[in-house]
Amino acid sequence: MTLTIGVDIGGTKIAAGVVNEEGEIIARLKEPTTPGNPKEISGAVAKLVLALCQDHDVVAVGIGAAGFVNAGRSTVLFAPNIDWVDEPLAELVGKQVNLPVIVENDANAAAWGEFRFGAARDDDDLLLVTVGTGIGGGIIQDGVLLRGGFGVAAEIGHLRIVRDGILCGCGQHGCWEQYGSGSALVRMARERVHSGAVDVSALMAAAGGDPAAINGPLITRMAQSGDELSRDLLTELGRWLGEGVATLAAVLDPSVVAFGGGVPESGDLLMKSVNEAFLTHLPAGEHRPHAQLRIATLGNEAGLIGAADLARPQVS
Amino acid sequence: MTLTIGVDIGGTKIAAGVVNEEGEIIARLKEPTTPGNPKEISGAVAKLVLALCQDHDVVAVGIGAAGFVNAGRSTVLFAPNIDWVDEPLAELVGKQVNLPVIVENDANAAAWGEFRFGAARDDDDLLLVTVGTGIGGGIIQDGVLLRGGFGVAAEIGHLRIVRDGILCGCGQHGCWEQYGSGSALVRMARERVHSGAVDVSALMAAAGGDPAAINGPLITRMAQSGDELSRDLLTELGRWLGEGVATLAAVLDPSVVAFGGGVPESGDLLMKSVNEAFLTHLPAGEHRPHAQLRIATLGNEAGLIGAADLARPQVS
Amino acid sequence: MTLTIGVDIGGTKIAAGVVNEEGEIIARLKEPTTPGNPKEISGAVAKLVLALCQDHDVVAVGIGAAGFVNAGRSTVLFAPNIDWVDEPLAELVGKQVNLPVIVENDANAAAWGEFRFGAARDDDDLLLVTVGTGIGGGIIQDGVLLRGGFGVAAEIGHLRIVRDGILCGCGQHGCWEQYGSGSALVRMARERVHSGAVDVSALMAAAGGDPAAINGPLITRMAQSGDELSRDLLTELGRWLGEGVATLAAVLDPSVVAFGGGVPESGDLLMKSVNEAFLTHLPAGEHRPHAQLRIATLGNEAGLIGAADLARPQVS
Amino acid sequence: MTLTIGVDIGGTKIAAGVVNEEGEIIARLKEPTTPGNPKEISGAVAKLVLALCQDHDVVAVGIGAAGFVNAGRSTVLFAPNIDWVDEPLAELVGKQVNLPVIVENDANAAAWGEFRFGAARDDDDLLLVTVGTGIGGGIIQDGVLLRGGFGVAAEIGHLRIVRDGILCGCGQHGCWEQYGSGSALVRMARERVHSGAVDVSALMAAAGGDPAAINGPLITRMAQSGDELSRDLLTELGRWLGEGVATLAAVLDPSVVAFGGGVPESGDLLMKSVNEAFLTHLPAGEHRPHAQLRIATLGNEAGLIGAADLARPQVS
Repeated sequence: MTLTIGVDIGGTKIAAGVVNEEGEIIARLKEPTTPGNPKEISGAVAKLVLALCQDHDVVAVGIGAAGFVNAGRSTVLFAPNIDWVDEPLAELVGKQVNLPVIVENDANAAAWGEFRFGAARDDDDLLLVTVGTGIGGGIIQDGVLLRGGFGVAAEIGHLRIVRDGILCGCGQHGCWEQYGSGSALVRMARERVHSGAVDVSALMAAAGGDPAAINGPLITRMAQSGDELSRDLLTELGRWLGEGVATLAAVLDPSVVAFGGGVPESGDLLMKSVNEAFLTHLPAGEHRPHAQLRIATLGNEAGLIGAADLARPQVS
Repeated sequence: MTLTIGVDIGGTKIAAGVVNEEGEIIARLKEPTTPGNPKEISGAVAKLVLALCQDHDVVAVGIGAAGFVNAGRSTVLFAPNIDWVDEPLAELVGKQVNLPVIVENDANAAAWGEFRFGAARDDDDLLLVTVGTGIGGGIIQDGVLLRGGFGVAAEIGHLRIVRDGILCGCGQHGCWEQYGSGSALVRMARERVHSGAVDVSALMAAAGGDPAAINGPLITRMAQSGDELSRDLLTELGRWLGEGVATLAAVLDPSVVAFGGGVPESGDLLMKSVNEAFLTHLPAGEHRPHAQLRIATLGNEAGLIGAADLARPQVS
Repeated sequence: MTLTIGVDIGGTKIAAGVVNEEGEIIARLKEPTTPGNPKEISGAVAKLVLALCQDHDVVAVGIGAAGFVNAGRSTVLFAPNIDWVDEPLAELVGKQVNLPVIVENDANAAAWGEFRFGAARDDDDLLLVTVGTGIGGGIIQDGVLLRGGFGVAAEIGHLRIVRDGILCGCGQHGCWEQYGSGSALVRMARERVHSGAVDVSALMAAAGGDPAAINGPLITRMAQSGDELSRDLLTELGRWLGEGVATLAAVLDPSVVAFGGGVPESGDLLMKSVNEAFLTHLPAGEHRPHAQLRIATLGNEAGLIGAADLARPQVS
Repeated sequence: MTLTIGVDIGGTKIAAGVVNEEGEIIARLKEPTTPGNPKEISGAVAKLVLALCQDHDVVAVGIGAAGFVNAGRSTVLFAPNIDWVDEPLAELVGKQVNLPVIVENDANAAAWGEFRFGAARDDDDLLLVTVGTGIGGGIIQDGVLLRGGFGVAAEIGHLRIVRDGILCGCGQHGCWEQYGSGSALVRMARERVHSGAVDVSALMAAAGGDPAAINGPLITRMAQSGDELSRDLLTELGRWLGEGVATLAAVLDPSVVAFGGGVPESGDLLMKSVNEAFLTHLPAGEHRPHAQLRIATLGNEAGLIGAADLARPQVS
């Protein structure tokens, strides 16, 4: 059984793990990220890889990183959080660890992980929607990761959901992640608090009276304990998510849509709303088969597992 | 050199042709469609195929048809113009002609044709946008036709471009084809005529004084002869097309986008506007490579050629 | 006590009544409308007026009619349902009945009625929103009917609520009445039925299995008996109404907003949703006094009563 | 001839002037504002008024201030730039200067000035649109200032022009001033610069290479000297302004719409675009008289002149 290493470079830490052919992580290590020193990251990754190689016979390394990765899976063209420009990450790490190294967009890697070992392991056509600060995504089509002509496909958080809508960090207006992400949920909560339109007392009490202390997990918790406002907010978030998935389904026709990031914690209430909006907004919905909407199962290890598996040499 | 037959079932006629490995049509036949008798269409297709087989040594048949085609490429689940429900078209034709038969969505077949022999023959990642009464599309990813989990992907005309927008025949609001199709162009022209906002005299004169006589080719002709209103209308159509392609590019990352249908006739003015809107609306446009926007080259034979080629047995 | 006659020219009938200074109708008559013969309507109105004058000492006549009425209150510039062009209605009726006659837009007349004797009789600043096939409206500002520079103000049904939205009969897109009227309610219901997204069985059963038999009163009745879908539909209608009133409030700052037409029948559920959306969408809502949202009280006699009162000579 | 004093409390200075019955300013004084000390402003106003009273026989004072003013014209309920809450400004100033004092919203005062002595002095129904950092407005209906039930009407900058659009400082999304103000113009310019979609070299050179140095007057100047990008930006601004005025016209039916603030400097190119969009988007435009769109004529003294005139006692 061949072993590979998956690496997940996040905003605050680098996680690495040895992954077997069943997608199990049999050893792990991690280290804090130092985003101020982009050039040091390849060294930190190599250090983790070399440490894991001490005890495991590893044949390749797969790295998942937020950002645009080139079509050759070697170079990070642009990253939102780390100051890289055309960073040749595969080469930089590879020459230190003396193993084949590939780089993949982190959401793509997570989609691959969920396809191989998670929510869609019984299917060939997956759309993964990761709901966090923004919305990330990955697409599997007929068992193949859809990478696009330049390697930068599946930036579904920047699907335009509202024409002339809210300004996004990408420079465009109305991107999906301005309405359907965890950040959007918090923004909607604060707007409701300020509008004075509804009973905000319970949520405000839970936030210690400070609107700035409202966050996604708090809203989820309050919704679960029955707070009407928090339930409304999750319902509205679900509506935006369902609307976006419906329009993506017209283009991609996935058989499974899996939701990761913070969605698994929010659970049934959110998914009920997503499902309803998806069915209401699916074009020609009565004439076409419907994708199954599922919760992702690998949690925040999907990217690491997927990156490791993508690095695994194909047996011919 | 193996030969195959491509068949294109359109709203008014069925066209069939023998296609060689270079994508050349070396013989053709056609017959009017009788949409009132959906059950007779398979017989009409078989008749054309058998006639072409008289003089040509054909190994397989590919049929392109508007509608949802199942994942197995055998059955039309639903067609907008012909009253088929789960029509087993491949089987019905196959047992009459005694050849392998596959069915494909017509826009998918056209995309395959443009990828193999047309506007994207030098590339592996194509988005074809066909602008006619509606907007059709096909997607090639890494040299493979993207068909979706149920066979009904690439219904890009139903991408939602305006939330709560114009009602579409599919039951949803704000579909792209309500803003970027030939029908939308004509609707916009008539609205301008009725609003009295601009100088409509030249276009109205060309339409013989009857707003109902305004159509896409007329607007194109008037624009080419310098009519300000017609030029404005094509510019606006281009803007809608460019906006839609920009948001699709975030999801699909094509390296080539080809425009077929009525676009080739409308030419430079339209494409200039499409390009401008595409670049203005592409998310994170300064950090990612840009697709090339091209005019499709196979005209209305793209579907027939593509269907024939999809039917061709893979040489192992 | 002076008496005046109010006339309400509707799509199917002409109603006339003698109204006293308390806004009470002390005698009434009506006649079917013959929309095919626009020139006969002034004669029919005169006939009703003369009949009422037999028993009552009347000093003036006020006519309410759907359409654009000129600033001088004498001529109907354009009517959506009757084929009038610059119809000098006041003069045509006046010379037959030998009394002073004024013409007013029917929704304006209704607003005046509600201001003088109905939902806003205790206030000076009213926005009346009449929800029927479309949305009509009238505005009272500081006790004066707001008629506009050309007499055609308060066409609030054509406030644009969605940019590039649903096409309206007025030639524009996204008018409020495409989202917040009774017709819109029915359209939404049929879309839900076709999308298959929710449990439509109860509503469909009530409609005898025929989507075309769904209408506003049926939805209201089903909502009152607890049907989830019908309740959702009224909630959504209320949301659109509340959003529109919120943006109008920023412009007009009414102290009372009254809802007429079919709203009084729909009752609490609808008004709850209107109120919530109004408060959520009111700009700078926490820094400004809020209008009271009320149900209109004069029913479909508001126009007749208001027209009669507008015709009453001012006592100096 | 009675004289009154008008005061304009702006973000950076307080301007006061003695105004005669022809609307001429015959003496002026000004003082810098100190927004940090809201309580000192009434004293500063009183000082200016007393100084002007030395040489002029003044009968009343009118103060224009940004913010919500109560229906009694005495108290500022809320001001966006000065930290006032229910500030009894008329009383505070009045007891120091011993004259009748009224307070009015500054944009309302400016509308009154333009109605009495400026762009609409020949008309009775005016909508004034002031385009600056935001969009302000004032409405004259049949010769009367429309103040609303609570005194806070005509907040036209918060008309919702895009559903779910850009977040506004008022807490709502899609307010007109997020698309049609000077700030919006600058934001659009910077977005274009970052998108790399068009030739930005001339504008960037004029801004010394710094996108942060782009401002409205610079764009206007570049447009006048022929820069294509700057001309496009003014055209787009005009489109948003025209769309907003068209929907307001359906509600208010003004006979004159005057544009103040920065619009007079931008001139013909901007107004051409405003006019075109107005006519294209006016509901039922072919059936109703059209307002005249004009440039305001009193410049930034409209508010001072209008406030002074509103304070003038009515001759009985």
